[in-house]
Amino acid sequence: MTRPFIDFAVLSQGADEVRTFKPGDVIFKAGDPGDELYIVRKGKVAIQLGNRTLAELGEGEVFGEMALIDAGPRSATVVAETDCEIVPVSEKQFLFMTSEAPYFALSLMRIVVQRLRTANSALA
Amino acid sequence: MTRPFIDFAVLSQGADEVRTFKPGDVIFKAGDPGDELYIVRKGKVAIQLGNRTLAELGEGEVFGEMALIDAGPRSATVVAETDCEIVPVSEKQFLFMTSEAPYFALSLMRIVVQRLRTANSALA
Repeated sequence: MTRPFIDFAVLSQGADEVRTFKPGDVIFKAGDPGDELYIVRKGKVAIQLGNRTLAELGEGEVFGEMALIDAGPRSATVVAETDCEIVPVSEKQFLFMTSEAPYFALSLMRIVVQRLRTANSALA
Repeated sequence: MTRPFIDFAVLSQGADEVRTFKPGDVIFKAGDPGDELYIVRKGKVAIQLGNRTLAELGEGEVFGEMALIDAGPRSATVVAETDCEIVPVSEKQFLFMTSEAPYFALSLMRIVVQRLRTANSALA
């Protein structure tokens, strides 16, 4: 079955709110509470755990979804690597999108599954 | 915001199709293609990767969702540990539930996020 996954880059273009960060700015820290997820509209961010960079994300990529999904704390620290434009998606918007746009939910699930596959291969 | 997560144990009680397995039976193997997820209705299964048991799942717990979400191969092997009753959820049912029952999607996302948190803490 084909699935029209969401293009988060396109979604971020129409956003009302955009936050800007400079290289080195911490967007959130591991352990923080979190009630938003984020789409990178411009620039690059690094996902860090301790001294390790787990991933670098660029335009149209999503981060911060874990805390929003299970109401747990931030699992990693995210730092701007370049000048960045970041679009926040609030819990309310997230729940609305999940109920009104099923492929939003599927697209997010796919992101989390891909992160899990990466973590599992690092463990194997 | 409160979220009425799905009770998969209850969902599995009303299923049309149930498969039974004996202790030691392999339900699927890492690397297999997969187009169903599963709910444990009775018994216990072990999720194995190589020689390691990653998790044991019991009544009302879900497995096999990763391959269904991203159309990748099975990421681990699942073996019955006891006599089991397992309810399959087809891709068609999965897509229907995701679009008609948003909390189904949220509940699955939560499961995947929790697996990811477990994997990340093993890595940290």
